[in-house]
Amino acid sequence: MEHKNNTGCGANLIVLFTDFGLEGPYIGQVQAVLQQQAPAIPVINLFSDLVPFDIQGAACLLPAYAAAFPAATVFLCVVDPGVGGARPGVVVQADGRWYIGPNEGLFARLARQAGKLECWQLPKPGDVSASFHGRDVFAPVAARLARGGDVSGESVPVSCLERTDWPDDLFRVVYIDRFGNAITGVRASAVAEDVVLQVAGQPVKRARTFSDVPAGDAFWYANANGLVEFAVNRGRADVELQLNTGTAFKLPGGE
Amino acid sequence: MEHKNNTGCGANLIVLFTDFGLEGPYIGQVQAVLQQQAPAIPVINLFSDLVPFDIQGAACLLPAYAAAFPAATVFLCVVDPGVGGARPGVVVQADGRWYIGPNEGLFARLARQAGKLECWQLPKPGDVSASFHGRDVFAPVAARLARGGDVSGESVPVSCLERTDWPDDLFRVVYIDRFGNAITGVRASAVAEDVVLQVAGQPVKRARTFSDVPAGDAFWYANANGLVEFAVNRGRADVELQLNTGTAFKLPGGE
Amino acid sequence: MEHKNNTGCGANLIVLFTDFGLEGPYIGQVQAVLQQQAPAIPVINLFSDLVPFDIQGAACLLPAYAAAFPAATVFLCVVDPGVGGARPGVVVQADGRWYIGPNEGLFARLARQAGKLECWQLPKPGDVSASFHGRDVFAPVAARLARGGDVSGESVPVSCLERTDWPDDLFRVVYIDRFGNAITGVRASAVAEDVVLQVAGQPVKRARTFSDVPAGDAFWYANANGLVEFAVNRGRADVELQLNTGTAFKLPGGE
Repeated sequence: MEHKNNTGCGANLIVLFTDFGLEGPYIGQVQAVLQQQAPAIPVINLFSDLVPFDIQGAACLLPAYAAAFPAATVFLCVVDPGVGGARPGVVVQADGRWYIGPNEGLFARLARQAGKLECWQLPKPGDVSASFHGRDVFAPVAARLARGGDVSGESVPVSCLERTDWPDDLFRVVYIDRFGNAITGVRASAVAEDVVLQVAGQPVKRARTFSDVPAGDAFWYANANGLVEFAVNRGRADVELQLNTGTAFKLPGGE
Repeated sequence: MEHKNNTGCGANLIVLFTDFGLEGPYIGQVQAVLQQQAPAIPVINLFSDLVPFDIQGAACLLPAYAAAFPAATVFLCVVDPGVGGARPGVVVQADGRWYIGPNEGLFARLARQAGKLECWQLPKPGDVSASFHGRDVFAPVAARLARGGDVSGESVPVSCLERTDWPDDLFRVVYIDRFGNAITGVRASAVAEDVVLQVAGQPVKRARTFSDVPAGDAFWYANANGLVEFAVNRGRADVELQLNTGTAFKLPGGE
Repeated sequence: MEHKNNTGCGANLIVLFTDFGLEGPYIGQVQAVLQQQAPAIPVINLFSDLVPFDIQGAACLLPAYAAAFPAATVFLCVVDPGVGGARPGVVVQADGRWYIGPNEGLFARLARQAGKLECWQLPKPGDVSASFHGRDVFAPVAARLARGGDVSGESVPVSCLERTDWPDDLFRVVYIDRFGNAITGVRASAVAEDVVLQVAGQPVKRARTFSDVPAGDAFWYANANGLVEFAVNRGRADVELQLNTGTAFKLPGGE
C-alpha cells in the first residue's frame, strides 16, 4: 500500500539520530547517500554518538530532542544491534514529523507521547549490505520522503511500535555529555520541583541552572530539552556522583 | 540603541567556536537554529572542543584562528560556565568580523589586538532555557546578523571586553590536538627564533616544521595560525614532553 | 603542462579523507577554504580520524571507501607525516574520480586497482605554512578541480604512485571503529568464505553479519565496503579478540 507524503513539498531538513559515531566513515557515507538522492535538503547531525545497543535509552531521548524541529522534518534514526536480521524497518509519522529506522523499540516512547501517529513497514531489503542498513536501506527512504516522495511501505498498526514492558519514564542515566552532565530518561515534568532524588547513594536537590548553586555542588535540573539531568556547577557530575550510562536513581521512598 | 550591520548584505559564513563537543546534541541543535533562521548561510565548525570552562585559553585561540576569515564572517563563540547567571551577552565587531557570545573574557584578546572595534550588549534573555544560551540566545543573534539584520543591543564601551589582569601572551598550553601537538597562548611573533623555551623541565628549540628535525625529536614552531606550538616529529609532544592543557612554560631566565 | 579536467562541469561533491581529527580546528579550516573557493560544492567528511602517520593502512581503505562515489567526485586525501618536507603533492585521476594529496604512498593501492589512471605532480608550494598543506596547498587544488578548473601540475608517470614493496592485501587491522569492529587491509574477495582466519592466537570463522551468530561470538565478515572485518555480535571485537590497529592476522597455514 502506498501513502502520499502529506507534507506535499517534502522536508526542509533531514536529521540524523544515530549511534554511528562521528569517528570512522559511517556518518559520511550516510550523508553521501542523502547528498546524492536529496541534494537540496540540509542534513543536521543531532546525535551521532548514542550509546551503542542502548535502544531504550535512545528511545527516551528521541521525543525530547525531536520536539523542537518543525513539521515535516525527516529523522533518520539508527540504533540497530539487530541489523541484517529479521527486525523490520519502519516509517513513522508522529505529530507531523517523519521518522525512519529499525523497529526494535526505538520509536516506543515517541509513539506513546505522540498526539497523531501513523506507521508503515518497509519492504524486506533487496540486494544490499547485511551490516549497514542505515546507509543502504534507511537513508534512501529518508531521501525519498524528504524530496516529497511517497512512503513505499505497508501501513501497519501503530501498536507495533510499542514496548508495553517499558515504563513512561526511565529512571536511569541514558547519556553523559562531554561536560560530564548525565541526561536521564525521565521527563522533568514528571518530577515535582522539591523532590530530592536518590542517585548512587546520594541525595540530589533540584536547581534552576548551574550558576544557581556554588561551584562544585551537584544538582538536578530540567535540562534545555525537558529531561531530568544531573550536573555539577563548574565540575563533572559523572565524576563527582560516580555516574555511568545505566546508573539507576529513584524518587524518595522509591525502590 | 540600534546599529545597522554595515556589511549591508550580511555574512557569507557563520563560524562556530565552542566547547560544546561534537559528541551529543549541542552542535546539531545550534546548527538547526541557524538552518531555520539563516538557511542560506553555510556554517563551519572551527572549534567544537575548546577546553570546557577555560575562557582565557579560548580567548588566546580566537584572534589567531579568526584572522584568516573574510570580513563579515559571523563567529558564534561560546565557552560559558556562567550560563544562566548575570553575565551579559555581547556582539563585537572587530576588524570587520562579527562575534557573538557571553562576555566573561572570551573576547579580551581579540579586543586588545583589533584595529577597529565596537561592542553592543544584548538585552537580558526572555523566556528561554537557563542552560543553553548558545542555542536559545546567541544562535538567533548570529542568524539575524548573518542575514544582514541590525544589532539589537545597546552600544557599550569596548573596555567592557577587557581583562586588564590578563597578559598579552599566555605562557601555557591552551589546546592539545589529536596528534599530541600542544598549542600555546603565545604569539610566535613575540618570541625570537633562536629562543630555547623551558617546558616541563626541558629545553626545547625552535624548528621550521616537523620534517626539519629527526623523528622523535621535540621542537617548538610557529604553527599555521601564528601561535607557538610544541611538537614532536612523528611522535606526540604531550606524551614525550609530559604536557597537559594548562602546562606552563617560560622564556630562558623567565620565572 | 596543463590538463583540462575532462569532467567539464566540475564535481558535485568534495570528499575529505584525512587524519586531521574532528577535534580541533583543522577540518573546519579546510572546509572554510573549500567554502570560499568552491562555494557551490557540498563537502562530505568520509574519514576524519584515519590513524595518524599510517599511510599504508589508509591506502588500503581509500579504494574500498571511494568506490561508491560517483564519477568526478574530488577526494582531498591527507595522511602526511612528511608535511613541509620534500615529498611532492599529486593529483590522481582514477576511474573517473579525482584525488589530491601528498605522494607518500597514500594512492598506491588505488593506483594498483584502478582501470584508468593518470597522475600530475603539483608545483612546489609557494609562500604557505610549512605544517598545514591540507589547508594551504591541497584544499585550493581540490576547490579548483571541483569548480571544473584545469589541473595545474606536470603530468608524471603513474608509476610514481606505486609502492612495489607493499602487498596487494595487507593482513593487519587498519582501523577500529567506535563499536570495536576491526577493519583490515584485506579485500574480502581475496579470502574464500570457508577460511578460518588466525588472529591474536585465535581461530575466527566467517559469518554473513552480526545477527547470524550468537551474542558474544566473534566472526569475520565482508564488511559493507568489501573489506575483511573482525566483529563480535553485540560486543567489541577489539576487546574480545585483543585487537589494536596494527594487529596482524593470517590465513590458515600462513606465516
